[in-house]
Amino acid sequence: MITPKINFTPGPSQLYFTAEDHAKNAFREGIPSLSHRSTKFEAIYREATDGLRELLGIPAGFHVLFTGSATEIWERIIQNLVERKSLHFVNGSFSKRFHEVALQLNRTSDAIDVPPGQGFAGDIQVSKDTELIAITQNETSTGVSVPLSILKELRTRYPELLIAVDAVSSLPYPDFDYNVVDTVFFSVQKGFGLPAGLGVWIVNERCLAKANAMLNRNISIGSYHNLPSLVQHEAKFQTPETPNVLGIYLLGKVVGDMLRVGIHRIRKDTEYKAALLYQELNAHALINPFVKSPEWQSKTVIVADTGASTKAITERLLARGLQPGDGYGAGKATQLRFANFPTHAREHYEWLCDIIKSF
Amino acid sequence: MITPKINFTPGPSQLYFTAEDHAKNAFREGIPSLSHRSTKFEAIYREATDGLRELLGIPAGFHVLFTGSATEIWERIIQNLVERKSLHFVNGSFSKRFHEVALQLNRTSDAIDVPPGQGFAGDIQVSKDTELIAITQNETSTGVSVPLSILKELRTRYPELLIAVDAVSSLPYPDFDYNVVDTVFFSVQKGFGLPAGLGVWIVNERCLAKANAMLNRNISIGSYHNLPSLVQHEAKFQTPETPNVLGIYLLGKVVGDMLRVGIHRIRKDTEYKAALLYQELNAHALINPFVKSPEWQSKTVIVADTGASTKAITERLLARGLQPGDGYGAGKATQLRFANFPTHAREHYEWLCDIIKSF
Repeated sequence: MITPKINFTPGPSQLYFTAEDHAKNAFREGIPSLSHRSTKFEAIYREATDGLRELLGIPAGFHVLFTGSATEIWERIIQNLVERKSLHFVNGSFSKRFHEVALQLNRTSDAIDVPPGQGFAGDIQVSKDTELIAITQNETSTGVSVPLSILKELRTRYPELLIAVDAVSSLPYPDFDYNVVDTVFFSVQKGFGLPAGLGVWIVNERCLAKANAMLNRNISIGSYHNLPSLVQHEAKFQTPETPNVLGIYLLGKVVGDMLRVGIHRIRKDTEYKAALLYQELNAHALINPFVKSPEWQSKTVIVADTGASTKAITERLLARGLQPGDGYGAGKATQLRFANFPTHAREHYEWLCDIIKSF
Repeated sequence: MITPKINFTPGPSQLYFTAEDHAKNAFREGIPSLSHRSTKFEAIYREATDGLRELLGIPAGFHVLFTGSATEIWERIIQNLVERKSLHFVNGSFSKRFHEVALQLNRTSDAIDVPPGQGFAGDIQVSKDTELIAITQNETSTGVSVPLSILKELRTRYPELLIAVDAVSSLPYPDFDYNVVDTVFFSVQKGFGLPAGLGVWIVNERCLAKANAMLNRNISIGSYHNLPSLVQHEAKFQTPETPNVLGIYLLGKVVGDMLRVGIHRIRKDTEYKAALLYQELNAHALINPFVKSPEWQSKTVIVADTGASTKAITERLLARGLQPGDGYGAGKATQLRFANFPTHAREHYEWLCDIIKSF
């Protein structure tokens, strides 16, 4: 079997095109055996977080913290920010799992449930004792993306609630207004094109205050990765535990490369590539976009209803060196997913669309 | 500054001498963008855990699970195995932190506290409601190692209690009798000489039964990384979350290399190198072993009282391309620590001893 040249699976995905070279340099510089209490590590932490602040427009007053995965962040958010009750927008497998984490941690948790592939319509009711609203801004399983206007609307209607945004498979694309969210998080193996094993947790002072208030009332908020512990270590550009030093180093380097390309161009390219593929899917006789409403179609994870042609299309793409992502869960046999991340070039998408068109 | 040729810091430490080549192969083979739900990943999981079972003599009936760090495992052990009360043997900074994790998770937790550098003597009293005894088998901060006979004695006296062993900075050296322990854990950046960002958690069926019993009584045992969830995924050679795939791959490869050397030879070399350095420290006019009792002296993290000579010795070693580890905490200005891991060759230790002798 030839190794596919371009990987469109939505995560882990194609590495960012500079990642391998940075990894080689890391070994040359002794990064993997560097002490996480050294000033050199502190510079690495700082390079990654300063770079992310610039790339994503994260304002002062937000902390940028590291965990082992975004899955871990689901748990830390519930542990540190929810004493009794959270509300989850559920429209696929990952948003559902975030909701389940709250239940596993013995919180009360409501869910606004819509069928996979659909957006959230109508008047949203939030019960009075809710403390946090959890939004999966980009549902990797179904390719539904929540428009940013909804975050603003929720903030306006419920200013006292914390708003947590899972942006695992959309960042660095969405241009969040950090005034209307309290915490945003992602993992590095999707849009940032890096080896898995690192989660990035962005939180504001309201989150920290909530965690401290719970701690003061003797509610356990976890140990080494509780929010006050993470923030105390961040002040020294360190982590509580020995972290994935290599992962943090690579993140800093790739973010630096993205800054050189420019976030504006990355966003424009993302939109161009998404438009190409959706156009192709809309025009195709056998294949359709799974998400029907353009307003809810993800630009970064594009899900195609490929039906009975799934196997044949997969084989055609693989033969040309393109690896599509399988459909998720119930969609495994009848859908394909295509990641549209910064490492996927315009040429890759043009090539992908040509092959689909020819089918 | 020239990069030191040999790193004796006790973790992250010198990489295993084959690690960099394996990392290069990993990128060549597309490991960093491999799906963690693919059969290729399952083979990688299996290679690492089968290798560890063989290398460490882990019997059937024990599960081998992956986390983000050993620090995470402290938390998971308390969360999953302790409903009310744990007992911790504390003789340094890391055993103390394990004890503190239990308190942070709102458990009652006793500690048998001895001064840094000393072993545990006299009759050990365990209060009646204790569920788990936590032993830091090798205290990285002070270089005290708990003799394996104590584990056997505890098991004989308290057969109903779970025994948890932190072997972070000793494995693969100690030859544990898995009949007298219930869970053992480590992280890969010490004795295994790998980039940080992966913890290995070895647990038996008694641990799983305890976690399930707590869960059945509606006590939260965490979410994605609770023990039943980890074990269910292990049955498919998978993990609940997207893990550090590259780290698991590298672990499997380095364990394979260690198997080719042979665990018997690794252990004999460890003892030879430790004997060399302790002999040198015992004979030296200005430098002494911090741990006085040979029975309690660690073979894998050797701490030297270097007193007023600390800075001068450090400079002499650095000038020859050897990086010693700083003393930990209170010992920072007056001690040096030397890791004695499988990647440290006999020649490295002979060289180290020559320089110390000449001082």
